[in-house]
Amino acid sequence: MINACLHFDAAMEQVKTELDRRLLTAPFPVRAYTAHLTLAHGKFIRARAVLACAMDGEKMVPADAAAFAVAIELLHLATLVHDDIMDEADLRRGVETLQKRYGKRTAVICGDYLLAAAMRSLAQVQENDRYRELDAYRYVNQICMGELRQNRNNRNFGLSMFRYLSIINGKTAALFEASCYAGALAQGRPPEAAGIGMSGAGRQLEAAGIGSGTGRPPEAAGEKERLRLYRRFGRYLGIIFQLMDDCIDFESDNRTAGKNVQSDYEQGVVTLPVIYTFYRRPQLRQRAWQGRLAVPELLQAVADSGGVSFTRRTAGRYYEKALAALLALALPPGQQEQLKALLDKAYLGLKKEPLKLVQTG
Amino acid sequence: MINACLHFDAAMEQVKTELDRRLLTAPFPVRAYTAHLTLAHGKFIRARAVLACAMDGEKMVPADAAAFAVAIELLHLATLVHDDIMDEADLRRGVETLQKRYGKRTAVICGDYLLAAAMRSLAQVQENDRYRELDAYRYVNQICMGELRQNRNNRNFGLSMFRYLSIINGKTAALFEASCYAGALAQGRPPEAAGIGMSGAGRQLEAAGIGSGTGRPPEAAGEKERLRLYRRFGRYLGIIFQLMDDCIDFESDNRTAGKNVQSDYEQGVVTLPVIYTFYRRPQLRQRAWQGRLAVPELLQAVADSGGVSFTRRTAGRYYEKALAALLALALPPGQQEQLKALLDKAYLGLKKEPLKLVQTG
Repeated sequence: MINACLHFDAAMEQVKTELDRRLLTAPFPVRAYTAHLTLAHGKFIRARAVLACAMDGEKMVPADAAAFAVAIELLHLATLVHDDIMDEADLRRGVETLQKRYGKRTAVICGDYLLAAAMRSLAQVQENDRYRELDAYRYVNQICMGELRQNRNNRNFGLSMFRYLSIINGKTAALFEASCYAGALAQGRPPEAAGIGMSGAGRQLEAAGIGSGTGRPPEAAGEKERLRLYRRFGRYLGIIFQLMDDCIDFESDNRTAGKNVQSDYEQGVVTLPVIYTFYRRPQLRQRAWQGRLAVPELLQAVADSGGVSFTRRTAGRYYEKALAALLALALPPGQQEQLKALLDKAYLGLKKEPLKLVQTG
Repeated sequence: MINACLHFDAAMEQVKTELDRRLLTAPFPVRAYTAHLTLAHGKFIRARAVLACAMDGEKMVPADAAAFAVAIELLHLATLVHDDIMDEADLRRGVETLQKRYGKRTAVICGDYLLAAAMRSLAQVQENDRYRELDAYRYVNQICMGELRQNRNNRNFGLSMFRYLSIINGKTAALFEASCYAGALAQGRPPEAAGIGMSGAGRQLEAAGIGSGTGRPPEAAGEKERLRLYRRFGRYLGIIFQLMDDCIDFESDNRTAGKNVQSDYEQGVVTLPVIYTFYRRPQLRQRAWQGRLAVPELLQAVADSGGVSFTRRTAGRYYEKALAALLALALPPGQQEQLKALLDKAYLGLKKEPLKLVQTG
């Protein structure tokens, strides 16, 4: 299909269906394992980011943005499968992990399969010259480097906030940036600034935009600047997402629910609430180094020192930066609203979406 | 460089240097680990296959074949790093494995990094339209599927020879096929048969061939047939390589040397010498299922039943098939000799190359 458009909701459905199809129809014997992954869906927040950045004011999305979103979710899935091996995790999204159910060997290979499949899909989308400048491999590298940095800093109780932010910048935020970048490219502006010599091509959507009466970012901003703003928005969105996720370990309602409490700390992963707490109480850091800081005491210290509030405030600063990038894009109201909703969702935590009321008759 | 040519030996040196450079200059902190991989070099047999298939009668190789060879060796390295995690191997080529030295987490991520780097390199080479028809992802998939099949058949003492050959067909032979395919494409024939509309381009090497007086496969064979023969040669080369490798576990000189004896069987990997032995002595298979077949007894049984000779004979049949494909290619003597030497090396086992006498003065 030559970049037909479909509504955001329809595109999201297509992404979910296509992702399941890819996992259920993988060649034997990979399928025996990848099919298991369809039992537990995530929130597709990366796919949502791609599509929301790709949509116009009428929430219409070019079809190849959906293909991009599928590839990025596949890549994310590959990292989860390998993460679960490294963390020896038993559950993911409430369902047994591949490594727990089928063993580490199988999980290593399935992760490799998914990584290769994702990169194939990304390469296929990028055969379209419009997408060429998004160098997907660069982002895969950034993710690997972020993961390695995190790993090197395992049980490093002297980790600085600056270094921590650089870790999550790779580990989590890189893929969010790639998502928004992909969406922005899919939206259909030709890379004029790059001067690759396709100034005439890629304008069809611009023309279509006039027809459907949607707004466009002002010409003055320039294509390069527009892409930079989208990438920046994605990067900040990812950092917010990770910082809010870090807080979950220390949320009282999770604590009382008695599940997954302090899993990060127990695995030696030092996150921002802990970094702040150690900054306020250096003697605790000392005791952590000596292996004499038990989880309940840390928990109390994080609560007393306001480590979670500090992390939320830090996320809040990135929220403001992301919002500034969003406003600078001067998007049509429908699209701006969608991206703002994504940002709010990341900032307000990983709450479930409210049930939609279905009109009958 | 626009496909300059260099001598096979110089090209091999370039591949080794470039591979080391890639590992030593990876971005921090990946480099801290990938640098360790330069301590133990393999025999670069896949790179040799690429270059030998790409050379002309004067042993001159197009420069982009060397780039292909580097990418394929990187891909091979990625699979080794992940294999060592799955096998919990301590040593590889006499040097500590990444997983042993730096832990499984690091090895998982480094393998991912190398896999991504290899796929990026393959994609870069394949931007040249001449190489487009080699779909590298298909081969990565085949490797994953072969590994998964082997894993599913761990401790399956009822494994048939047919199924075993299909496992190594993916696990090992796929990458050898890709290597020879890449070399054949690099040799410079345009994909006439595919009719991609670049009939004029890609002929420069043909012309260069005339100038240097090298022979070419007869036009009659057709480009499609030529590529098919190279692929087939590579596939058989890989099967021979794996079958001869399987014999090493049961070689008496290794046994007396007391190292790595029966490592496959002890890890539940059932190879052809064992399959044949169980075929001759079903009661042993029964006891293996019951966990009552100790290694020394199996070793004696393999020796008595001629499991190794049978495996060698099977490899011999593939040797003949590979030779037939090689002869059908009707290559110039210099190239044929090089490919025959590669085949002999695989068939005669992984012996060290003889030392070269260096003329002085």
